[in-house]
Parts: sequence; C-alpha cells; structure tokens
Amino acid sequence: MNGAESLVHTLIASGIDTVFANPGTSEMHFVAALDRIPGIHCILCLDENTATGAADAYWRMTRKPAATLLHCGPGLANGLSNLHNAMRAGSGILNIVGDQATYHRPLDAPLTADVEGWAAPISGFVQRCMKSSEVGRDAAAAITAANTYPGKIATLILPADTAWDEGGISATAEPPEPPSFREDAVAKAAGILNAGEDTMLLISGAALMEAPLHLAAAIAHATGSKILAPVSPARVERGQGRVPIARVPYPVDLALDALAGIKNLILIGATAPVAFFAYPGKPGYLYPLNCNVHILARPDEDACAALAALASALNVSHDPRLRRDDHRPAAPPTGSITPEKLAQSLAALMPPQTIIIDEAISYGRGFYPYTYNAPPHDWLQLTGGAIGAGLPMATGAAIACPTRRVITLQADGSAMYTVQALWTQAREKLAVTTIILSNRKYAILLGELANVGANPGATALNMLDLSNPDIDWIQLAEGMGVPAARAATMDELNQYLTAALEHDGPFLIELLV
Amino acid sequence: MNGAESLVHTLIASGIDTVFANPGTSEMHFVAALDRIPGIHCILCLDENTATGAADAYWRMTRKPAATLLHCGPGLANGLSNLHNAMRAGSGILNIVGDQATYHRPLDAPLTADVEGWAAPISGFVQRCMKSSEVGRDAAAAITAANTYPGKIATLILPADTAWDEGGISATAEPPEPPSFREDAVAKAAGILNAGEDTMLLISGAALMEAPLHLAAAIAHATGSKILAPVSPARVERGQGRVPIARVPYPVDLALDALAGIKNLILIGATAPVAFFAYPGKPGYLYPLNCNVHILARPDEDACAALAALASALNVSHDPRLRRDDHRPAAPPTGSITPEKLAQSLAALMPPQTIIIDEAISYGRGFYPYTYNAPPHDWLQLTGGAIGAGLPMATGAAIACPTRRVITLQADGSAMYTVQALWTQAREKLAVTTIILSNRKYAILLGELANVGANPGATALNMLDLSNPDIDWIQLAEGMGVPAARAATMDELNQYLTAALEHDGPFLIELLV
Repeated sequence: MNGAESLVHTLIASGIDTVFANPGTSEMHFVAALDRIPGIHCILCLDENTATGAADAYWRMTRKPAATLLHCGPGLANGLSNLHNAMRAGSGILNIVGDQATYHRPLDAPLTADVEGWAAPISGFVQRCMKSSEVGRDAAAAITAANTYPGKIATLILPADTAWDEGGISATAEPPEPPSFREDAVAKAAGILNAGEDTMLLISGAALMEAPLHLAAAIAHATGSKILAPVSPARVERGQGRVPIARVPYPVDLALDALAGIKNLILIGATAPVAFFAYPGKPGYLYPLNCNVHILARPDEDACAALAALASALNVSHDPRLRRDDHRPAAPPTGSITPEKLAQSLAALMPPQTIIIDEAISYGRGFYPYTYNAPPHDWLQLTGGAIGAGLPMATGAAIACPTRRVITLQADGSAMYTVQALWTQAREKLAVTTIILSNRKYAILLGELANVGANPGATALNMLDLSNPDIDWIQLAEGMGVPAARAATMDELNQYLTAALEHDGPFLIELLV
Repeated sequence: MNGAESLVHTLIASGIDTVFANPGTSEMHFVAALDRIPGIHCILCLDENTATGAADAYWRMTRKPAATLLHCGPGLANGLSNLHNAMRAGSGILNIVGDQATYHRPLDAPLTADVEGWAAPISGFVQRCMKSSEVGRDAAAAITAANTYPGKIATLILPADTAWDEGGISATAEPPEPPSFREDAVAKAAGILNAGEDTMLLISGAALMEAPLHLAAAIAHATGSKILAPVSPARVERGQGRVPIARVPYPVDLALDALAGIKNLILIGATAPVAFFAYPGKPGYLYPLNCNVHILARPDEDACAALAALASALNVSHDPRLRRDDHRPAAPPTGSITPEKLAQSLAALMPPQTIIIDEAISYGRGFYPYTYNAPPHDWLQLTGGAIGAGLPMATGAAIACPTRRVITLQADGSAMYTVQALWTQAREKLAVTTIILSNRKYAILLGELANVGANPGATALNMLDLSNPDIDWIQLAEGMGVPAARAATMDELNQYLTAALEHDGPFLIELLV
C-alpha cells in the first residue's frame, strides 16, 4: 500500500466519501489510488473556488466534511476566497493539497509556493506529510480537526513522494471532543431573561435548525424577548410549519433600528453584530452603547444544548403556536418584475425541502421576508462576503442532497467570479435552478459610491457597470451544457421556473431586472 | 486632499497610468478619486486573477508597473495564482488592496481576513497604510519596490478611512537602486569560456531581448559554447532577423538530453534548471552531476551589463551572421491539424511585432521551434506553472501595446480558469486573437498518469476528461461579447486567423485538435 492508497482508505474509514477535485501532476498517484479503491465520489471542478465553495455547502447540508483536491500552492490560492466563506460559516472541510516531492521542494521549481502560508489564515489545522507511513495518521488527525465543532478547515499537504512511496498505513479518524456549554452562562442568561428588560437572543450556527430555533422562540415568547439571526447565517431551516426569524439588516441604519432599545443581547452561537464595513460617522457595533452583551454559547460551544438547558431553567417547552403556518400564495404574481414578487413566486412554486442558495446581494434584500410562507426549505447565504460563492455552493448542496431541489438566487456580477461551476452542474446532472438577477452593474457598489457622497463620472461608471458588452447568460450557460432561458416578466419567469423545477438537471434563468 | 486623492496623484507622479481593477465597497473613495483626477486608465476585470495576470503581461511588455485594485483579503486571494506567475516572471506590479477601516478591522467583520499573510508569499514589499497623511509616502515606497530590478510585486493595503480622511500628501517614487554586476563573475566566466570545455550559457530575464541575446550568441559562437533559455521564460524577442534560442524541454528525459555532456553551465539572469516536478527514479536537477554551475548574473543582477562586460573581456562583438533570416512560409499549411502545421500557419500569417501568449501546455510543445521564421515577435509564457494565465496576460499585453496584435495559444482546460478575461477583451476592443486548443481533456495529466504507470479507470478519466459536456467555446466567447468561430481543419483555421488578424477587436477560434 502506497501513501496515496493509505489516504484513500483513511478517508473511507473516517466517513469521507466525496471529493471536489481539480487535480494536477503532483496528485496523479492519489488519482490512481482513487481509481483502484472504490467508495469515493469524485466531482471534477474546472476551477478551485468551485471545489471549495461546493465543499462548504456540502458541509452545511450534511455536517460531514467533503475533501477538496487541489494542486500545489496556486491551486489552493485559487480556492481561498470560498474557504474564507466556509471558515465564516463554521464549515468542516478537508483540503488535500498535492505538492512537490519532499526532496524536490528545496529546488524551488516554478510551481513551488508557500502552501502553509496561504493555508494558515483559513485553516484550523495545517499539516505537511513527510513520509508515506505517516500519511494515514496525518489524514486522520486532519479529519478529526475538520469535524471539530462547529466545523473547521483542515489542510493536508501531500508531497508527491509521500503519495507514491510504499509503506502506507491507513488510519481512522477519532471523533473530536464534543462541544460543551457553561452552566453559569445558562444561569446568567436565565437571570437576564427573568429580569424583564428589553432583551434579544441573537442566534446562529446549529441553533438555526428547526428544533432549537423553535425552542429559542418559545423562550423569547415566554420571557417577552426577541429573536434575531445574523446578517448572513450559514443555514436556516424555515418556511411553513417552522418558526420565522428575521436577520440583522445589511444597511447600517436599518440594523441600528432593528436593535434599537435593546438592553441585553444574548449571543447563542453568534458573535456580536458589527457593520460589514465602516462608514464615516456611523458606528461599527450595531447594538446600543448601553446594551449588555452576554454570551450564552460561543460559536464553538454547544448552542443547542445551552438552549435546552436555558429552556429547562426557565421551565419553557416547545410551543406549537409559534410555528408559522401561513398559506403559500395560491398562484405566483404576474406582470413586471420586483424583488417581492420574485420572492412570492418562489414561495408559490418551490417544492418542499428546496435548498435556497442566496447570493442575490443588493437586489435580493427583499427575498427573505417574503418567503416565510414557502414550503419548508433551507436558506444558505454568503457568510464571509467573498462573492463568487453562489454557483459553487449550489453545486455542493445538490451533491449533498440528491433528492432535493436547489434554487440559486444569484447576482450577475458575483456569478461571473465562479461561472465555471455551471459546467460541473451539467456534468453531474444536478437539480439546480439558477436565477441570474441580471442588472448588468455592480449595483451594490453604485449604492456604496452614493453613500460616499460621490456622483459617478465616466471612470467610476466604467468600473461599476457590467454592460458594454452585455453578458449573454443564455450563451454562457448553454456553452457549459446548462439549458437556459431569458425572462423579462414575472409571467415568463413563472413559466420557466415551473418547467425548470420539473427538469431533470440544471437550468438557468436570466432574469432581466 | 483625502488619502485616496493623494494616492492617485502619487501614482501619476510616479509613472503609473494603468489600473486593472476589480473594486469593492472599501475602494469606493479611491474609485471616486480616480473619477475626479484624470490621467489613469482603469480597466474593469470581472475576476481578480484576470487583473493580476494582465498586470503581469503589462510589465513584461513595458517594464512599467501597472496597479491592480483588489477588494480585501479574499479579493487578493482570488488574484494570487497569477501573482505567483508574475513573481516567477520577475514582473513589477503594485497591488492596491482596499480593506476595512483601521478602527473597524478589530471588530472582525465578515470580510476581514489576513491580507498580509496572503500577500507575503508573492510580495517583495507589503505595507498597510495607517493614516491618510502617510498614504502618498507608503505608495511611493511601494512603487519604488515594484520598480526594483528585475521587478517586484508590491502590495499596498489601503484601509477605507486612510482613503476617505483628509490630510493626504502626494509623493513621487524614488527610482530604485539600479542593478549591478560583479566583475569577478565576469572574469571567471571569461576564463571558463576561454578554457574550451563544453559550456552552455543559460539565459533569462532581460537578456532575452534582441540586443543582449545577440551578444550572448556572439560570445557562444566565438567560444564554441551553446546558448539555451529556461523552460518558460517571461519574454523572448525572436523571429526573422533575430538570434534563435531554444528552451529547456519540459519533459525530464528530453531536458537531460539537451544538457547532456555540459561541463560548465553559466547562468545569466537564470536559475539552475530543475524539473517542474519530481518523478520516481529521475533526477531533479537537469544538468549533469559533474557539471560546474557558474553564476554570471543572478536574476536580480544586471545580466545585460554583465554580458556586455563579458563580450568585452573576450573581445567579442555582435555578429550579424548569427541573425536568423529564414523566409516565412509562403502560404500556411492545409489539411488536417497538427501542432507543427499550426505553428507554420502562425509564422505565415502573423504580422510583424505580434505578441504571442503561450499557454498551450501539452499540445503546444511543438509551436516554439516551428516559429523561428515568423516575422519579429515576442513570445510570453506561463512562468510559474499556475494555469489560467493566458487570457489575462493577453489582455494586459494588448493594453500595454495598443498598436500590436496579440495571439493567445491557449489550452482549453487552462482557459477555463480565467475565461472571464474575454469580457474585458471585448469591452476594451483589444486586438487579441485567441486560439483555443480544444482537446476536451487535461491531456498533460493523462500523460502524467501514464508516467505514474497507471491505466486510467473510470474515476481517473472522470477527473481528467473535459467532455461530458463538451464546452462550446463559440457560445462562451459570444456570451461575453467576443465573436468566435470553430475550425476543424487547417484551411478553416487559416481562413479565420486571416480574418481575425484584420478584425478590429478580439476574436476567438476554437480549434478542434
């Protein structure tokens, strides 16, 4: 057994069965081992940021790490921005980065780069294998790290000779230390909630799944407090029969309004809310100056168990009345396109258990509140602000949940960063419907430029405008094997969306907004 | 004057007039300043690796740094792999990375990342501005670093408040220390060459321009030695009336043959040749074990002056007989497509002063030797092995040299990493003809897998095969505004290439190989 084979056996023994791959020369022994040893589903990606974004969504939907297969430092570099998003989401991923042979690396061949230096900022674990006999052990440690609550990015650097040398020993990853919570934090939160001041529970991470969120809402209802989610949580279970939860608004002024008057902010798997960016004369923290911040559970603590303990301390249990059970729209809206109507069309047409991938940016801020009455669904967002996550995440979510539908709400400018993901969707025949919100500009930046107090002149417009030439999304999609259509009215959108959701593979709708 | 305005004035005063931009929120004050202060040509790129790859080629063609404008750590990360190539090419680039305001950064907003950590591996200079009054000074220092021979990557991190605060002071970059050379190295090289042993001059960097290369060839001719270029030099001036120089072959066995019997290897702006990757049982260094390596000029020394001093020591001057003056093919070859015929078509059809961007990878290894008889042209290669450089480099070369034609010889798999560059070519109406070598597989990796001794099975083929679905390059190109055609024979290629080279903007030919 060579090192590469020991790695494949270790992956399988440790529960990793999916690899999003963009391999190169130094990974050929690993590819050959994947060929010989069945049990791993390899998905080819044409660029690395598709691979890492897909692995992020795969974790969010399964709580299981996928592996990425990347080629040397530059291959890792190409995937870093979606690893940044994954780190912000608390996702567990195993990066396998092939590299120069141990004895060749000192020769500084052209592709040699500082893999560890690039990996460190987004990794909770970085290890370079030094011997074939240690690859299994190192991989097992990396997988344990990836599984560490809430999920970490583990980067395993695999020099070519550690892959091809004989003497491999497979291993099995130990389960990580489970997360815990602090009884004193529970008691203090109970005291705050019992005191009756204006209090808000800010909820994130695993506590945004259906059951813990329901319990949090019951606690809030019983104590007269409020619940809120961060601006861009990794995943929310929502829709009919579930508890609705709003998010901190993105615009600073709206966020300040949403948290105005709060005397106590209790963080449950969340961090204190801050503005995405600073603006002259506006605060960075989004809660009032006189608000006390209490941490019930840090992101790496067991927020669900802490919530259960808090409910018990307060003598609160699930309250079925808190589940929202509005009817979905009987028919999708027609006529001209607005964000609200688009959201209602989604609510009217999406099947139960749809996974929504939201990289709608400026145009999409109205989508979330208008879909509470959709059938039960998951809502995944761009957690780290590094645009270019939507199409890759849709790819990974569809691989993770092959019996569910995925709908991607995708800004056009952001889509262009990782448009290559469409090809993988076609190749794997994934049930992904992409709605491109084609406004042909970086609309968010035109708004930000206005915030700066500047009227855009020719140079600025040239840098924020995506027309000249217009991007033809139908040609781009079909060029990568994804059938597509263009919609200029809600009627057209409804027609294509209905058809797409019954279609057996991916479909793209360019929505002219 | 705010900090952003002081930066624009400093760029202009220091000779930077071109910015390849992919801006975000934190760069809006800089964008507004570019709007107000004329003198800088801003080119919008839809992804950051296009911006950095374009800046690389811009330097190679002008020896002047362009700036890139990137958004926070993840924006830099998206451009790192072409910065890796640029660093290997010895290109000077000024990266301007907008970032969180100084006082906002500690709040760890979602886009906050380790910009310095990601920048360090590819940068010769990294500086975070801390005050608006220091932005001009910091930028000037960065530009001096970028201009330091042979060219360095300088990364200037611009927190939003240092851009918007008043108190900016513009500055002008000092010229860097000029490169020098060592007289003792010249004397030793002269001694080696006079001794008459089998000697090879390995030439790279600025010494591959027409005049120094001619002088090196004259030295080799007079002393009975050989000349050779590295496997992937940044730029070679070649073609009719110039001195031909071969490159170290990529395959290890061919490279060993090319350097067999050499007793002395004299490095002139080059590093000792090593294999791109290690292979079991094959050496890493490509020159014989008993070969002495002598450094006439390191990459950061003045190789051209050292060559001139060496010629003087040897009493050698330019020898017009060494200039190759073959006739170009009277007509391009017809019939079925081969790499050699494609190269001869290029030689027959390209206008003088064409810039060739070569990311042809496996299919293109025959192109170089079959184009010695083309009209005078420049040949730029993928220097760092990080694929996805071709389309961005073509974009930057065309911006750098608006009166010249650019032809990109582009492997299909590699093209998909940065296909977004086509849009910028269309927007800027660049005279770039892209020839996609569409073999619908990662052909180099199938070769490498065979080297590993493995017959590809279903899993490996799935990871190395780019069909299923076939990428339709016509639709991709036209979807981004670049007219395109498909050629299945040399006749068709010749017809489209002739038309494309007279066409006023970009054109793409998908060549089915």
